[in-house]
Amino acid sequence: MKAQVIVRLKDGVLDPQGEAVNRALIGLGYDTISSVRQGKLIELELDETDPVQAETKLKNMCEKLLANTVIENYTIDIAK
Amino acid sequence: MKAQVIVRLKDGVLDPQGEAVNRALIGLGYDTISSVRQGKLIELELDETDPVQAETKLKNMCEKLLANTVIENYTIDIAK
Repeated sequence: MKAQVIVRLKDGVLDPQGEAVNRALIGLGYDTISSVRQGKLIELELDETDPVQAETKLKNMCEKLLANTVIENYTIDIAK
Repeated sequence: MKAQVIVRLKDGVLDPQGEAVNRALIGLGYDTISSVRQGKLIELELDETDPVQAETKLKNMCEKLLANTVIENYTIDIAK
């Protein structure tokens, strides 16, 4: 079973990496950009057949390791 | 107009970051994981109204800055 976890900085949390990308793009002439935010994509392959159980496990993984829930949100997407 | 760019390592390219996450998850007791790959998510806000023109611009941005096309693939998703 394949799963995709996306970890984004919460709104309001400064994103220096996104800011740097934004400035670099403006430097290249793309001046119609008003904001850039950068996040993480984690793609996992699980030996799991029950999607409910897989989701519970993935949630725990996010809380414990994949995301810093003080400043980050995460979304879990399980491929059918 | 919002757009989402996902940058992934190409198949076959070593992913030490994903490998490290995999090992850390196994260390936490999640031993049903067979692979982890980590990628980048870049969310942009564009002052653009034409989706075709936006996509062309985003493709150029990916080729020039956002992705290293020697080792990475990218996908562009424009929110309607």
